[in-house]
Amino acid sequence: MYNLYYWPHIQGRGEFVRLALEAAGAEYVDVARQPEKKGGGRAAVAALLQGTDPRAPFAPPILEVDGEWISQTGNILAFLGPRLGLVPRDERSRRWANQLQLVVADFVVEAHDTHHPIAKHLYYEEQKPAARRRSRAFVELRMPKFLGYFEAVLARNPKGPEWMVGAAMSYVDLSVFQVVAGLRYAFPKAMSRLEPAHPLLVALCARVARQPRVARYLRSKRRIPFNQGGIFRHYPELDR
Amino acid sequence: MYNLYYWPHIQGRGEFVRLALEAAGAEYVDVARQPEKKGGGRAAVAALLQGTDPRAPFAPPILEVDGEWISQTGNILAFLGPRLGLVPRDERSRRWANQLQLVVADFVVEAHDTHHPIAKHLYYEEQKPAARRRSRAFVELRMPKFLGYFEAVLARNPKGPEWMVGAAMSYVDLSVFQVVAGLRYAFPKAMSRLEPAHPLLVALCARVARQPRVARYLRSKRRIPFNQGGIFRHYPELDR
Repeated sequence: MYNLYYWPHIQGRGEFVRLALEAAGAEYVDVARQPEKKGGGRAAVAALLQGTDPRAPFAPPILEVDGEWISQTGNILAFLGPRLGLVPRDERSRRWANQLQLVVADFVVEAHDTHHPIAKHLYYEEQKPAARRRSRAFVELRMPKFLGYFEAVLARNPKGPEWMVGAAMSYVDLSVFQVVAGLRYAFPKAMSRLEPAHPLLVALCARVARQPRVARYLRSKRRIPFNQGGIFRHYPELDR
Repeated sequence: MYNLYYWPHIQGRGEFVRLALEAAGAEYVDVARQPEKKGGGRAAVAALLQGTDPRAPFAPPILEVDGEWISQTGNILAFLGPRLGLVPRDERSRRWANQLQLVVADFVVEAHDTHHPIAKHLYYEEQKPAARRRSRAFVELRMPKFLGYFEAVLARNPKGPEWMVGAAMSYVDLSVFQVVAGLRYAFPKAMSRLEPAHPLLVALCARVARQPRVARYLRSKRRIPFNQGGIFRHYPELDR
């Protein structure tokens, strides 16, 4: 039984953890999405961050299991992977999965910073010219670099190009699916130009979305829609 | 026996790995710092990145051991920690160490982006106004937040405030030392204002620097000096 603590109104980094839990059919409570009367809401997350527990985390997502607080997306997924059957058993493959997940994490920071290149505490409107320049570099150089790398990883997988790591779906596939979904929301024009050059990646994302548990989750109310408060935001002026 | 692949003229992210190897007295070759005739230089790193190995990494640092390529700083340190005796033995403490290391990684990205808020491929001079704004937010809000968190982790450590994780030096301490050293180089004014409020962190860094192997390394030619090509760069106009 898992308790997930993440901001209730956005997918954000919490979504990488939600997808893993959902894809594995794990029982969990998305605590901050419970009514405030029942201990939910943003206050539930804030309380953890301001707590005085010796191992109080720096930022959400935070997974609570057996009284342990685990945070940092890659760290949570490295923990959940083996428990949920979402990573191969051997240590080498687990390191490879963790490595790829940290590449995803780097990509996510860069995607976020397209609309917030100056400071998180300022509104997008306060950093628009910088956002436009950063987005141009992101779309022209960084998206092709990261997406091309994922495509190459699929093409080179000795077990076949169906999955990123080994011969079955892992948490890395779920995370790559999520990033591509986010980029399609935020940069639809750029993605429609880039997708034809990344057929394995496009096929992977369709494959992930077809998994019965994932498909059910994506249709459910538990999946928060993309919106202008998250990592991936659609500002047409940033998507040339 | 370890082979480290990292750009030869900067500390960069490679330094977090170098510090762990040096502090443990591990035998390793800093491959790109060997003469080009002997397979060193930037070409050694570039060859790996352009390779067609099924698990070719995305970016350096890259550690080669027993024919396996391991990349992403946090992933390398999670692997090396137990082998080098630089993390407690129990799984929970290892997760905690990994979690803290990923917080350090987030901080490092933000420190880098103070001078490159728009794009990595542009010169600093091409993004100065944005760099000034981003640095202001970094110095006023982000540095206190991250440094304050590290101070709190030390204060709350049930084994005492000497180390970040448990009762002995871990790779997290070495990484925190490196970040503080970098910030002192890049933002000396900001750091001299902030340090008095973070006495445990300041003491930690002095403690790390006093470890005999670390001290010898820091005095050696193997320690590349901070410079204007790395993550931490000193531009007086960014250090108000």
